[in-house]
Amino acid sequence: MLGTNPRSHPEPAATAPPSPGAGTLLQLLRDGVPRTRSELAAVTGLARSTVTQRVDALLASGLIGPAGEAASTGGRPPTTFAFRPEARVVIAADLGATHGRLAVTDLAGAVLAETSADLDIARGPDPVLDWVVARGRDLLTGLGRDTGDLLGIGIGLPGPVEHSTGRAVNPPIMPGWDGFDVPGHVSNRLPGSVLVDNDVNIMALGEHFAHWRDHDHLLFVKAATGIGCGIISDRQVFRGAQGAAGDMGHITVAGDDGPACRCGNTGCLEAVASGAAIAAELTRQGIPAHSARDVVELARAGSLPALQAIRQAGRDIGEVLAGAVNLLNPSVVVIGGSLALAGDHLLAGVREVVYQRSLPLATQHLRIVQSRTGERGGAIGAGVMVINHGLHPARIDRLVAT
Amino acid sequence: MLGTNPRSHPEPAATAPPSPGAGTLLQLLRDGVPRTRSELAAVTGLARSTVTQRVDALLASGLIGPAGEAASTGGRPPTTFAFRPEARVVIAADLGATHGRLAVTDLAGAVLAETSADLDIARGPDPVLDWVVARGRDLLTGLGRDTGDLLGIGIGLPGPVEHSTGRAVNPPIMPGWDGFDVPGHVSNRLPGSVLVDNDVNIMALGEHFAHWRDHDHLLFVKAATGIGCGIISDRQVFRGAQGAAGDMGHITVAGDDGPACRCGNTGCLEAVASGAAIAAELTRQGIPAHSARDVVELARAGSLPALQAIRQAGRDIGEVLAGAVNLLNPSVVVIGGSLALAGDHLLAGVREVVYQRSLPLATQHLRIVQSRTGERGGAIGAGVMVINHGLHPARIDRLVAT
Repeated sequence: MLGTNPRSHPEPAATAPPSPGAGTLLQLLRDGVPRTRSELAAVTGLARSTVTQRVDALLASGLIGPAGEAASTGGRPPTTFAFRPEARVVIAADLGATHGRLAVTDLAGAVLAETSADLDIARGPDPVLDWVVARGRDLLTGLGRDTGDLLGIGIGLPGPVEHSTGRAVNPPIMPGWDGFDVPGHVSNRLPGSVLVDNDVNIMALGEHFAHWRDHDHLLFVKAATGIGCGIISDRQVFRGAQGAAGDMGHITVAGDDGPACRCGNTGCLEAVASGAAIAAELTRQGIPAHSARDVVELARAGSLPALQAIRQAGRDIGEVLAGAVNLLNPSVVVIGGSLALAGDHLLAGVREVVYQRSLPLATQHLRIVQSRTGERGGAIGAGVMVINHGLHPARIDRLVAT
Repeated sequence: MLGTNPRSHPEPAATAPPSPGAGTLLQLLRDGVPRTRSELAAVTGLARSTVTQRVDALLASGLIGPAGEAASTGGRPPTTFAFRPEARVVIAADLGATHGRLAVTDLAGAVLAETSADLDIARGPDPVLDWVVARGRDLLTGLGRDTGDLLGIGIGLPGPVEHSTGRAVNPPIMPGWDGFDVPGHVSNRLPGSVLVDNDVNIMALGEHFAHWRDHDHLLFVKAATGIGCGIISDRQVFRGAQGAAGDMGHITVAGDDGPACRCGNTGCLEAVASGAAIAAELTRQGIPAHSARDVVELARAGSLPALQAIRQAGRDIGEVLAGAVNLLNPSVVVIGGSLALAGDHLLAGVREVVYQRSLPLATQHLRIVQSRTGERGGAIGAGVMVINHGLHPARIDRLVAT
């Protein structure tokens, strides 16, 4: 733990609710369906007069607006109210080892503008975050919005992050970032909450939000240079006691005889099935490959050794996933990351082993699918992280309290 | 899924709160600390008049009572109010393959009376549940309480259970129980909610409640005839999409060359490290053993092969747990079940491998400990399951609504 931070952002305590209502009404309206005051009263069980008061507060905040009239049952037709996703915007950044992707989204998570660039994370936090701030401002300007419209900024980093303080913790490929106060740096330059998480968690959140919102339990596996996993449980990122949950890359798959892993152990999944491991193996076989991208290109060009290696990596990932499926019983497993771009080979290997090794009760309704958000998943998830935080019912209650 | 059931019991939806308050106040008071109306208003942010109204409703329900006067700051000293754990009682049953254990607890989970008996689960649901009902009534009578005081009945079963309907699903050792309507059968004979779960989940809940309430994330491993795992996440049982979460016994540890498992696969943890597997292995070595209990007795008598086998079983369990720790990042792992009664040998093997194989970030603050609730853990957990359900704030709000 790196100590508390004035910009840390725990969810408001559930045991001490302020007078509730507005946040709950907004939560209902976030589905985009316009509703009358009577409908809102019926769904929530609140008194009609209370609903009117809450609706007025939300109207004043701009988060909802009138949305035309409902069909009349006689007399003056009642007004309906709807969520206004355009009321605020979010800057969402997905920062990888060598590449940065930036989006501005509305409050429904729709990408309004985006950009990307080669960006070496190892240059350190100052230049990298300054890029986020400067390009974020540019995107806002291009949309005719200004920083006063910001709900917040969401940032994904390619390493372990302490979510509660927004700081990287001993990140292996990010010199200069260890313990750096990312929210502090950005908050001095832009208004709004600043939330930070690791890249796999935001990819899991983005994939869940974009395609699997009616599933409560999802695993997202990123197979790229390394291998990581983001766990969505009850529609939220599952973090565990120290926020370290989801580390799948260093689970043993090849035993004590397996190859050495950079973590100091042997036989870790990452040491046998990551893009880096496959590239090294192909190079040993006389087929030069330096990265996960090289492996994917070889596979696309029809290289049989590359195809076989990717399929076997899928089986190895499947071995570990079979255990994760038995333990966590998700209803969806999504395979993403650059290795997944090689087409169905990785997925075929994963399916082969999971359906063989997991229990029937756990696989009965299980879907194992390729990522659909692809390279945009991380930025979408970084935006969703900020939206879910900023529009949390208790926070809205405080925001619009009169 | 076995369809819906009128006695199923989802938690009330979070999106449509009734006018809140009483349930939240009770939740605060469940810590046993008496509080004045002013203190309750200060903690909750509710208006003093609202607190008075809620407190009156809770007094009328008998769930709280006056608890003397607070120190006065001048004028008449204010009354304090405290939770009354004796207001209701719970019948809690932990049913094993050949043994049943029954307790009556108060609303703080304290065991007021208990009994146990040899009870063959394979006799089928009618005689077994009738034993629960009859002995439950006897315990109540002995305490001078009657069935009108019941908050509910909690039952743990030694097989997979669909928690939402309270029915066993394809249980391997429970002929006649598959799909049987346990809540229906019991509800026809006793008042109160009837909740059912599998034995490992209630053991995890009991251990967490009794000893680890300030830890949000706990894994409980039951190592006995079989091997199972109960996951506590955010202080609740983690169930996953189909309620099948926590199956640790059929995760691969010995690979394709490992021994055949009753599930149809090879090399499952249960096939190499369960009490049944160890007993079979010792028998092969010329040391007759038929059960986990035999193995434990041999170990206690100093049998070196038994001690070695238990230590190795600990290592095998540790292999699987190391992966679970990386994935879930709990802060406590509790080892229970009859094999754990062999003393430190099992635990030593578990620790050896988990600390070697899990990531430093995940083991930094991890405690791996022996079960302390022992044979009472299941019954305590079955009681806690009913209490947490019955005293859920939204349910209390409805109960005392005026």
